[in-house]
Amino acid sequence: MRVGMVGLGKMGGNMAARLRDKGHDVVGYDTDPDSRDVDSLSALVGRLDAPRVVWLMVPAGDPTSKAVQELGGLLEPGDLIVEGGNSHYAHDRQRADELQRSGISYIDAGVSGGVWGRDNGYGVMVGGAAEDIARVEPVLTALTPDSGGGYVHAGAVGAGHFVKMVHNGIEYGMMQAFAEGYELMASSGIVDDVVGTFDSWREGTVVRSWLLDLLVRALNEDPELASLRGYADDSGEGRWTVQAAVDHAVPAPAITAALYARFSSRQEDSPAMRVIAALRNQFGGHAVAP
Amino acid sequence: MRVGMVGLGKMGGNMAARLRDKGHDVVGYDTDPDSRDVDSLSALVGRLDAPRVVWLMVPAGDPTSKAVQELGGLLEPGDLIVEGGNSHYAHDRQRADELQRSGISYIDAGVSGGVWGRDNGYGVMVGGAAEDIARVEPVLTALTPDSGGGYVHAGAVGAGHFVKMVHNGIEYGMMQAFAEGYELMASSGIVDDVVGTFDSWREGTVVRSWLLDLLVRALNEDPELASLRGYADDSGEGRWTVQAAVDHAVPAPAITAALYARFSSRQEDSPAMRVIAALRNQFGGHAVAP
Amino acid sequence: MRVGMVGLGKMGGNMAARLRDKGHDVVGYDTDPDSRDVDSLSALVGRLDAPRVVWLMVPAGDPTSKAVQELGGLLEPGDLIVEGGNSHYAHDRQRADELQRSGISYIDAGVSGGVWGRDNGYGVMVGGAAEDIARVEPVLTALTPDSGGGYVHAGAVGAGHFVKMVHNGIEYGMMQAFAEGYELMASSGIVDDVVGTFDSWREGTVVRSWLLDLLVRALNEDPELASLRGYADDSGEGRWTVQAAVDHAVPAPAITAALYARFSSRQEDSPAMRVIAALRNQFGGHAVAP
Amino acid sequence: MRVGMVGLGKMGGNMAARLRDKGHDVVGYDTDPDSRDVDSLSALVGRLDAPRVVWLMVPAGDPTSKAVQELGGLLEPGDLIVEGGNSHYAHDRQRADELQRSGISYIDAGVSGGVWGRDNGYGVMVGGAAEDIARVEPVLTALTPDSGGGYVHAGAVGAGHFVKMVHNGIEYGMMQAFAEGYELMASSGIVDDVVGTFDSWREGTVVRSWLLDLLVRALNEDPELASLRGYADDSGEGRWTVQAAVDHAVPAPAITAALYARFSSRQEDSPAMRVIAALRNQFGGHAVAP
Repeated sequence: MRVGMVGLGKMGGNMAARLRDKGHDVVGYDTDPDSRDVDSLSALVGRLDAPRVVWLMVPAGDPTSKAVQELGGLLEPGDLIVEGGNSHYAHDRQRADELQRSGISYIDAGVSGGVWGRDNGYGVMVGGAAEDIARVEPVLTALTPDSGGGYVHAGAVGAGHFVKMVHNGIEYGMMQAFAEGYELMASSGIVDDVVGTFDSWREGTVVRSWLLDLLVRALNEDPELASLRGYADDSGEGRWTVQAAVDHAVPAPAITAALYARFSSRQEDSPAMRVIAALRNQFGGHAVAP
Repeated sequence: MRVGMVGLGKMGGNMAARLRDKGHDVVGYDTDPDSRDVDSLSALVGRLDAPRVVWLMVPAGDPTSKAVQELGGLLEPGDLIVEGGNSHYAHDRQRADELQRSGISYIDAGVSGGVWGRDNGYGVMVGGAAEDIARVEPVLTALTPDSGGGYVHAGAVGAGHFVKMVHNGIEYGMMQAFAEGYELMASSGIVDDVVGTFDSWREGTVVRSWLLDLLVRALNEDPELASLRGYADDSGEGRWTVQAAVDHAVPAPAITAALYARFSSRQEDSPAMRVIAALRNQFGGHAVAP
Repeated sequence: MRVGMVGLGKMGGNMAARLRDKGHDVVGYDTDPDSRDVDSLSALVGRLDAPRVVWLMVPAGDPTSKAVQELGGLLEPGDLIVEGGNSHYAHDRQRADELQRSGISYIDAGVSGGVWGRDNGYGVMVGGAAEDIARVEPVLTALTPDSGGGYVHAGAVGAGHFVKMVHNGIEYGMMQAFAEGYELMASSGIVDDVVGTFDSWREGTVVRSWLLDLLVRALNEDPELASLRGYADDSGEGRWTVQAAVDHAVPAPAITAALYARFSSRQEDSPAMRVIAALRNQFGGHAVAP
Repeated sequence: MRVGMVGLGKMGGNMAARLRDKGHDVVGYDTDPDSRDVDSLSALVGRLDAPRVVWLMVPAGDPTSKAVQELGGLLEPGDLIVEGGNSHYAHDRQRADELQRSGISYIDAGVSGGVWGRDNGYGVMVGGAAEDIARVEPVLTALTPDSGGGYVHAGAVGAGHFVKMVHNGIEYGMMQAFAEGYELMASSGIVDDVVGTFDSWREGTVVRSWLLDLLVRALNEDPELASLRGYADDSGEGRWTVQAAVDHAVPAPAITAALYARFSSRQEDSPAMRVIAALRNQFGGHAVAP
């Protein structure tokens, strides 16, 4: 089928390529003139036949909101927007409500798989009305792995991004578990072959997983990870997971620990720890009457 | 090769069976008369030719210590004990030192894979002298997956159990991450298909893993896990991981969170939370002069 | 000075009483007919001379928002609303912006001290314009302890509730620390006199504090806290603290731990821990091919 | 009464001075020739009349063990050692058992109060037999605050150091709570007067405490704590608290968070966070077939 793709970066570009490989007709738009098929959203809409399908893979936040708003003014009743980026689920609902007034449908799709997705297929988690989702079934089939899995209709609008957010929260927790295990082995003075240990775990153990495979790849390239600094960004979805957990009174200590470890990794100096140092000095150092 | 196996429970029994399937000659002893080949450790030692190899799969702690001690009196210089249970790495070192005085060798093997290991093979992590390990190579090959992976010589005596301990610590963290994600989705009121969401993650996503496969199996059998109580034991290795992290000044917040969540799950009522309730009452309720 | 007080519950009622004790003229309104001086907000406004000051001590959320909105329609340019309840700082800003269009001023005051405040005085943290705050200085002086402390102008509108929120977050962490220490001593089998230990800490130690005083009071009344369940509510400000920490990328693991412990204390059964139990069963129990 | 004091550093020296102020006769020994009254432990024992009392204030670990051992050879049946340093409670029990064979008594005393104790008095928590403790009652009375509080007989040998350890664990949690609150306020861009806010909390609020008083002192000296690095040592008792919590299956997430924050503060670069960075690169960067 013919589909518009807005955003042709690392994710959107690969997805467009996979769709084309599978025989779909993708009209792509990007702010970068070099990679796009059309020069404007208006031109993109003009290249699609009603009822149109436009898939967004634009950075979360303002860029996505602006693209949705502009498309809202260009599309016609019966057209469909698929928000495939990393929007917050509450924003999905607001946008769907607004677009509905113009007769435009909106579904949200959380997409996982990173740079490996073009070849392996993507995990896709969708929220929205069943009839809207049915219209993009060929696209979803093409994006997901050839095995047939990797797809869920998680619930109403917002549910796709909600479960993608939870997926990423779980990912934070799993990564942190491996990271703590690595540091403990590397710091212990007991383990002579840390890389070999992780490698051995890829078969037969309880922790075997794709993340472990990736960690072994990284360690084979750089056994002490000496080329990297212990500095970890966060993409926003970990924060949202913690905030959703707090909103729903769900204890999420491991995922939260993973998020806070990233926060700490980015601090050159910790204001909190200056307080600890100050207090230790106050009660352990020389006293002056208060 | 011929090997003695002490402890024929869920782990040892399956391992003995796998070894026999692969052509090895296992002489088994267990406290349970129904499953054993010989009626005593002494008889087991008598059935093996020097230099003997005896593999222990006995519950950790006193049972293992007693078996090691008794074997130390029965075995001869040149014989080898493989401690395949869940011993603490510090105990391995003590035992190896004591046995060395009698000329008996000792290596430690952490074994992962649970009930699936008989068919899939086990992950085996070994600590000890290379020449001792070389003597049991045929057994290690038979126990590990046919693919050839699943094995590491992690370091000197104790290193096998140390990395197995860390493996289990990581396992705690990963399980906790999935558990928190499940509760968040189940409590949110946003996700209509929690089971389908986990199932979809098995392909193409970052969190795909054997634990996820197992979780989907469990959810397919009981979609709301209604047959289970939220009560989780801990086997001891999670505790050791946290204590080793503290000993080595390694922050391990996610693994520790997983351990504490299990502790909490086993409390009918939390003494700590009674303190919180008492304090809230003190400053929020009616005041009496102190 | 004459001031209107809306909300005459445990906090507002005591504050009104303290203000009257100090010579102020308080006109009180409450939804409860028994405790109020006037029967409506309209009547309350009628009893005050312009420029009026109305202090709100209404439950946070909708009740406060409704009271602000209704007062916004009744008050005149130049009048002042002091929101003394537990509003979120972002709501303060929205309300202040809206009221400003009608020429009505708004300041926010976080009030700490619980039921002890009537006699001891309250800690009051204020956000807003200096000239607005100056108008209620006599009231602030009367509310705060006679010693002269207990007051801060923390910043612009919202800052008062922001620092009160942080105060409560710190309070969560301190309470949790005492709670963990209590449980460890009570569970250890080592400490014969837990109550006496806490009591001894009231003098000369690093942990001496008002919360410790209150804990000793509670323990003297009920040495094993046997009359209480380990069930702890949260008032919302702990949640906001964690969410603000996440928003500002500030690691707040101890305060978050305290919040999550309260969440857990209210669960009859933990869905997350059912997942742990399910997974342990899957890899440790009898296997069925997937 | 006459008492021997071994260790005349910051703690022992001040305690000796306070005892002398209260009329006791202290014979002091230290490895530093400048501060001691006698030149050896042997000479110290010679200056005391049987039954002797020797109070140890030596660094924890080997120095204390050596002093106890040497004194064990010098003292006579009926003499008493008071271990006032920061020993682990398990070591107290071992030492008491060994000394008992020589008829020498042993009690353990946890001492809190830091450099302020000389003037304010110390909090003292004692473990041991009631009749042994009775012998040093005059000393305990002199060391504790003049108010009469600050003393507990917590249980058998080891209990004094156990509750002191828990005290320090609680102290870690409280300090961390203040530290997190400080960082949140300082990072928020919302609070204009962070120092004033903490100062205001000293009266009328729930968090008022000695630690808050000390924090305000430190902030008054250096409002942004700019002279300090965010680097915090740990004295060992925080570690023991966490390990005791793990041993007794007591969830201690806030105290543990405080300990881990100190560990992190001392790392120039986090190996664990290098793993996170490596994994993020693996699944988000350019792919190479595994």
